[in-house]
Amino acid sequence: MSKVSTHPPSGFRDFLPHEAAARLDLVDTITRVYRARGFQPIGMPMLENLATLQGKGGGTDNEKLIFKVMKRGEDFARSLEAKAELADMGLRFDLTLPMARYCARFREQLPKPFKVFQIGPVWRADRPQKGRYREFFQCDVDIVGSKEIGAEIDCISAILEAFDAVGMKGVEVHLNDRRLLSALKDEVLTNEQWASALVTLDKLDKVQREGVEKELTEKLGAVPAGIKLALDAGESLEAFAAKSPESAASLSGIVEHLRASTATKVVFNPTLVRGQDYYTGTIFEIRHPDLSGSLGGGGRYNRLLEVFGSPETPAFGGSIGFERLFMLLQEQQILSAMQAGAPQIFFPLFNEEMRGSVLKLAALLRARGLSVDVFPDAATKFGKQLSYADERKIPYTLILGSTEAAAEQIKLKDMQAKSEKVLSTQSPAKFAEEMEKLCKQT
Amino acid sequence: MSKVSTHPPSGFRDFLPHEAAARLDLVDTITRVYRARGFQPIGMPMLENLATLQGKGGGTDNEKLIFKVMKRGEDFARSLEAKAELADMGLRFDLTLPMARYCARFREQLPKPFKVFQIGPVWRADRPQKGRYREFFQCDVDIVGSKEIGAEIDCISAILEAFDAVGMKGVEVHLNDRRLLSALKDEVLTNEQWASALVTLDKLDKVQREGVEKELTEKLGAVPAGIKLALDAGESLEAFAAKSPESAASLSGIVEHLRASTATKVVFNPTLVRGQDYYTGTIFEIRHPDLSGSLGGGGRYNRLLEVFGSPETPAFGGSIGFERLFMLLQEQQILSAMQAGAPQIFFPLFNEEMRGSVLKLAALLRARGLSVDVFPDAATKFGKQLSYADERKIPYTLILGSTEAAAEQIKLKDMQAKSEKVLSTQSPAKFAEEMEKLCKQT
Repeated sequence: MSKVSTHPPSGFRDFLPHEAAARLDLVDTITRVYRARGFQPIGMPMLENLATLQGKGGGTDNEKLIFKVMKRGEDFARSLEAKAELADMGLRFDLTLPMARYCARFREQLPKPFKVFQIGPVWRADRPQKGRYREFFQCDVDIVGSKEIGAEIDCISAILEAFDAVGMKGVEVHLNDRRLLSALKDEVLTNEQWASALVTLDKLDKVQREGVEKELTEKLGAVPAGIKLALDAGESLEAFAAKSPESAASLSGIVEHLRASTATKVVFNPTLVRGQDYYTGTIFEIRHPDLSGSLGGGGRYNRLLEVFGSPETPAFGGSIGFERLFMLLQEQQILSAMQAGAPQIFFPLFNEEMRGSVLKLAALLRARGLSVDVFPDAATKFGKQLSYADERKIPYTLILGSTEAAAEQIKLKDMQAKSEKVLSTQSPAKFAEEMEKLCKQT
Repeated sequence: MSKVSTHPPSGFRDFLPHEAAARLDLVDTITRVYRARGFQPIGMPMLENLATLQGKGGGTDNEKLIFKVMKRGEDFARSLEAKAELADMGLRFDLTLPMARYCARFREQLPKPFKVFQIGPVWRADRPQKGRYREFFQCDVDIVGSKEIGAEIDCISAILEAFDAVGMKGVEVHLNDRRLLSALKDEVLTNEQWASALVTLDKLDKVQREGVEKELTEKLGAVPAGIKLALDAGESLEAFAAKSPESAASLSGIVEHLRASTATKVVFNPTLVRGQDYYTGTIFEIRHPDLSGSLGGGGRYNRLLEVFGSPETPAFGGSIGFERLFMLLQEQQILSAMQAGAPQIFFPLFNEEMRGSVLKLAALLRARGLSVDVFPDAATKFGKQLSYADERKIPYTLILGSTEAAAEQIKLKDMQAKSEKVLSTQSPAKFAEEMEKLCKQT
């Protein structure tokens, strides 16, 4: 047998057990926060028909990054011969587009508005590079069928509460509105020129004001007045009240309510652009001083459901960038404290004869909600069994040898205190109670 | 814009919110049980290199069912021109093979033995039909680096405890051993003939004893003596003690310990074959009288890690068939009782002016761990807002109109008792405490 590589595909990752446990805990915490605000889960496949993924009509950036799934059998052979499309499905590149399909499909059955959350993987065929992965998690909240500003406040609050619950401090919310950006267009510019100017403005984080102005001058001969206004305005909405009264009122309402309900810094930022072409109103981004780029974001997409035959449906949603959050929590060493469900008690196995008694005691402790690991092989040297418990950092070890068993006793080793004592198992219930107390103290 | 279909690809499923919530709860419960026994999570991508998925050297059934992911860009163009393989990756068809790769990769860093669990989707390009899906969940527990019989008892107990925890009663464990099946081979038969005889025996459930005997007579001229023995033995191991002493001793130990620790019916079944070709010892299946086919199963695969360059590593694992479990729980209407995290309290929104006060009270209640949904749009008619709460079966509604607010009061509607009363909000802490008590009673 020739050896097969032990590595995942390029751009994909394995996680060690402690990382995987931390990721599970993170997902659990975010889920709990989202559900406690009334957001409901939905179930969708991770593959969609290519037509669904390419359904928005305009070749967006993400569409170019679809991992395509090959047709099979005769269907494939026929397409190959006819030089037709060889794929019929694709891996989803975000959670929003499939959710829009879902909401259109079940329009009649879903509550109005529909408050929905999704946490799961998406895939993009990006060139693999540091910090950019081809499979990564998103954590979305959306309210479908709700006009501003309630949906904005609810979704963004949910996201902020999730950051809070996982221990991520220092995030900032930056808010803007697509209608405001449109209102800034100089009359002399075509729509295409204005779109191109916004693409340049979107690079502000990376190239700073000088870089933006330089590129705009190269592209359009001068920096458009609207862009200048955005760059000069700072966090003040005043300058925009006349140009785009609707969006200015909406933004000021969102900012006001978010500031009242959270300690997080919330600012209006007229230079925020965001890429997704389906946004129609409010857009937002979560930023953190320790990170270039964003920790999450989203916006209003009042026209997206029409792609799937729904009437115009107001909708707003946002997403936590799970991988960046995970990375930042790892760097700040916040993760280890969060881990739950790891074993509290370890039973080594002295010899085969003790297996029955050990399993019985372990079951007794588990029935009290304790997490208990029993070593499976009696043949393994005792020292190696203890090293296993050490390595896994299990705080208590219970040793049941034949002598102890005969005396209805068991030896308890406290791995942290490096102390030992003998417990009676004459009353198994009392013994279990004692262990429960001990574990709850820890 | 032309309308795009609202359906998922053929053979794939959407789940309504109440189904998705039940599935989440099911995953949570199984995760909790697995972790409480010391099984650790790991993280792996859902795609693998094709070479990994096809790595076992022999074209098994599952390998034929891989959804292949197309190469991209120039790589694709080159392969098309050269008439070479057009895919470079595939969606995993089970959780065991990628886990074997993972264990080989991190051999030096993982505890020995390594107790691992995985819950997640796998994909198979089966012909879509009722009850058979192209994307489905598996819930695996494995112990890598452990010889019989401790690993068998631990994994199977974990699975039985999970069935118990989700409320699935009446399951049975059927046990056999690949070595025992090998020992039954009649000397006159070639290995190929024997393998073919076992394939026929594997159909016992579907075609009964008559069908098996008929097919064997057609294939081999007569029913082999070993097959007769298996069919006649019932649940008694006695007849096999001489033929395969090692497996008989191992099976009797497993049966004994499982019977001592669980109320579940555990039987030796010499007609159990199971398909996976990598099994080397114990095999098992979870069955249920209401279901043809199995609710789960697994076996020992002591040679699988060698595919990835590891030395021979004893390993055992099993899996819960999540979709069948979910289906059976749905049929038995056990699921609804399990749902957690749904909103307990609903706030309609009378007018825009009340938004701030409502959000403040909602935050107060959430801080006490209550699940609270606030209606986002003040513009929606009040009756429609109440219908939303009704539809979502939220037990308590809190109505804060301008009159109530001015009097520092709030109206509480108990949706089930169809009663109303007025609460004071003069002391917000006292009000929150009262609501917490009320919700905890429900």
